[in-house]
Amino acid sequence: MANRLGRQTVALPAPVHILSHAAVGGKHEGEGPLADWFDQLCTDSFFGEKTWEKAESAMQKAALGKALEKAGLKPDDLDYILAGDLLNQCIGTSFGLRDFGIPFYGLYGACSTMGESLALGSLLVAGGFAERLGAMTSSHFCTAERQYRMPVPYGSQRTPTAQWTATAAGCAILGREGSGPAVTAVTCGKIVDKGITDANNMGAAMAPAAYDTLSAHFAATGTGPRDYDLVVTGDLGALGHQIVADLFARDGVDMGGNYTDCGLLLYDIQNQDMHAGASGCGCAASVLCGYLLGEMERGRWRRILFAPTGALLSPTSTCQGESIPSICHAVVIESV
Amino acid sequence: MANRLGRQTVALPAPVHILSHAAVGGKHEGEGPLADWFDQLCTDSFFGEKTWEKAESAMQKAALGKALEKAGLKPDDLDYILAGDLLNQCIGTSFGLRDFGIPFYGLYGACSTMGESLALGSLLVAGGFAERLGAMTSSHFCTAERQYRMPVPYGSQRTPTAQWTATAAGCAILGREGSGPAVTAVTCGKIVDKGITDANNMGAAMAPAAYDTLSAHFAATGTGPRDYDLVVTGDLGALGHQIVADLFARDGVDMGGNYTDCGLLLYDIQNQDMHAGASGCGCAASVLCGYLLGEMERGRWRRILFAPTGALLSPTSTCQGESIPSICHAVVIESV
Repeated sequence: MANRLGRQTVALPAPVHILSHAAVGGKHEGEGPLADWFDQLCTDSFFGEKTWEKAESAMQKAALGKALEKAGLKPDDLDYILAGDLLNQCIGTSFGLRDFGIPFYGLYGACSTMGESLALGSLLVAGGFAERLGAMTSSHFCTAERQYRMPVPYGSQRTPTAQWTATAAGCAILGREGSGPAVTAVTCGKIVDKGITDANNMGAAMAPAAYDTLSAHFAATGTGPRDYDLVVTGDLGALGHQIVADLFARDGVDMGGNYTDCGLLLYDIQNQDMHAGASGCGCAASVLCGYLLGEMERGRWRRILFAPTGALLSPTSTCQGESIPSICHAVVIESV
Repeated sequence: MANRLGRQTVALPAPVHILSHAAVGGKHEGEGPLADWFDQLCTDSFFGEKTWEKAESAMQKAALGKALEKAGLKPDDLDYILAGDLLNQCIGTSFGLRDFGIPFYGLYGACSTMGESLALGSLLVAGGFAERLGAMTSSHFCTAERQYRMPVPYGSQRTPTAQWTATAAGCAILGREGSGPAVTAVTCGKIVDKGITDANNMGAAMAPAAYDTLSAHFAATGTGPRDYDLVVTGDLGALGHQIVADLFARDGVDMGGNYTDCGLLLYDIQNQDMHAGASGCGCAASVLCGYLLGEMERGRWRRILFAPTGALLSPTSTCQGESIPSICHAVVIESV
């Protein structure tokens, strides 16, 4: 049976293998330092569709299709898919998955969705409830901007703390049997809200949630940042990454040089003028399902702690004066 | 280990008990035939808050609080809560749960969310990953109308196929140890889209998803409608309920008098002028967590098949000419 470590963390009874993984990105992702790790890059922000929302669905279709292809699987080989996105009512996912005929559990974890889908998916496989399943999410700069902030054609000026929502999708296929990197433990996050109200400063809003989940994970597993070759949060960007390091420093814990953030990795922040870095569900998803898992397969890292964060606000909650509740889900991925 | 019946259905290795359940409703719910089954009714559509969105969060707080109280539990006694709602970015849930400090997996299944949360929650408990957890969802007439259709103060005329979004929330506490009604099997739905584009006719859009999931469930378990004391879909209303019966009739299956729909139960449809019936996440959730589980405890039914449906559209997808993808998740609840 499962080895429950405290309330939030499960050490899986057997590793859940990542049978394949695929990342899809847009123009800016293709101009960044991780370009070579993408399975598909498209310079057309519409991905051949008529609207950006349909483009986001097209990215999910492409990511799932590529991941299935790389694993030598068909849609019918998946028992479930767990997925979600940032759009109102998660339409990137529902329209992206509509034609696949795969039993579907829809998730909403904002930009933590890749962590949430990997966590729940690993538990379903580990529990014997699925042989193989998919975990996926996406984001699109143009759909996110017009929904959360301003329509892109307005050309609104961006604050220094603003991050750039990745136009990207990532998909991982999990399975009971296999080889290569595998999920070995998961930690479910709690909602944390420290009162940040600036929707242009997601890093500051989400950093306390990352600190909360990572602290719970370290305590439950008796590990620290040094026990991982890489600790990587999802899309905190430059400011949020620093805040997490500062919060741990106050506890006497040095996060050290192995702590990074997908929001710092996806773009060449200075030269691509990305302000505080990348964000969006697709940021953590594509960095994991391209670069991170790819480098693990090459042997660069043996054990990583992947902890994407999500900001659970909406434009309506912001207009009603609310602060930004956030969450972070963490999974341990090891070469086994 | 789990007994997987085909691809979508799991017969749980041990029953997952419903330790307690609570339903919260608004004015119309309190004027309907199920009024006595609610734990809390509030005639103020704002539930003492300043906005309807905050009112929806207040309903979730109340439903969770009542369910915990009835089980003699504190928030710290729950390992997880699985919840979601209809609002953009599920803010009813994130703000409702913010102060409880319970590890949280956010779901988006539209009006199928009570089924999805019970299904995933039961699997987590059955897998040994949780001792106790909460499954919850909500909807609010005024938040849903202004988001999906028109602001309520416009007084727009409603079509005959329109349903009335319930102002209600339901919460069930699941646990490994206990007595009373228990979840014994779950069937995960696929996305089904038969091309319905009328956002005022959700029953027709969702009925094929209910038919798909119920058919899969019957086939996997070797059961039929006669094997359940009650088969109850979520919020198909009068039209959708009839379509499901018709679709089964074409297969030679008589759904019979034990097949009903929460959308037909919540209100006195004729006298309350509810057109095709009730809808919304809160419809299935409150009917289950009040009336259905209450009557099971009294011994009226021993075995029910609860199958709420969700329409995975958004106003944006409708404006972009898309049809309405739908889903249905089913759980078997038995007195054990």
